[in-house]
Amino acid sequence: MRSITRSPAGLSLAAAGLAALTVLAVSGAAGTAGAAPAGTDSLYAPSALVLSVTGGDDAASGTVLRAVTLVCAPRPGGNHPAPAAACAELRANGPELDALAEPRSDAACTREWDPVTVTADGVWQGRRLSYSYTYANPCGLRNSIGVLFGI
Amino acid sequence: MRSITRSPAGLSLAAAGLAALTVLAVSGAAGTAGAAPAGTDSLYAPSALVLSVTGGDDAASGTVLRAVTLVCAPRPGGNHPAPAAACAELRANGPELDALAEPRSDAACTREWDPVTVTADGVWQGRRLSYSYTYANPCGLRNSIGVLFGI
Repeated sequence: MRSITRSPAGLSLAAAGLAALTVLAVSGAAGTAGAAPAGTDSLYAPSALVLSVTGGDDAASGTVLRAVTLVCAPRPGGNHPAPAAACAELRANGPELDALAEPRSDAACTREWDPVTVTADGVWQGRRLSYSYTYANPCGLRNSIGVLFGI
Repeated sequence: MRSITRSPAGLSLAAAGLAALTVLAVSGAAGTAGAAPAGTDSLYAPSALVLSVTGGDDAASGTVLRAVTLVCAPRPGGNHPAPAAACAELRANGPELDALAEPRSDAACTREWDPVTVTADGVWQGRRLSYSYTYANPCGLRNSIGVLFGI
């Protein structure tokens, strides 16, 4: 019933890129907030993440304040507030997420120590991903460069 | 715009339990396959996971064959094929997932070494969760006790 299918990774990645561009152009903010199909036989390299915000500087033991899902193949979905934009950012930055998490250089934040930590866990283009970034205080998170952690 | 809300964890867990039961009873297999709302102001302790199946015995470096999302609060959702049942299993077993992943004791599987590894990453009831289980071959996965990893 549940069979293991091995998808050709190279083809999948290329196809996923093309398909994602098409979907972005066609659907816009159509807002099905949609889960992608389970995709047991999908040609796409899977991309599914959980993004979270934790109070404090220790994501492993802290209390998670918010968590959302983000699916990027075969089309953007999940309960992230801006899945299409977040997937586009991920495609542009690969698994190097500092470029998305860091506060903008012109952000006017105090140096108060009231840390919050964001995480991204799951699968990106067929590889497992585990990422975290700690801000000195919530101002840094509010001013992060990307929309990925704007949850 | 993006504000940090700190939800009362104890209250959230109790409320999530009640609400989840209600939703199970009402929605059944209504199949919106739905993403839950982003829940920035949610009373619920967040529960959002990515479940994956990787070829081989090394989830960290192997190629992920399939990955789905599962959201359990405020209601079951994500692109898991059976989110309501999977969330019920998780509530019954907490973060101890061996009881769901293990092959049934009456499973008739050979001892061939062709390993597959399943993982669960993300957030369960407000705490980060990272879990993996390796089967000797796909037969073990097809005969896992729970539906959680039946993706």
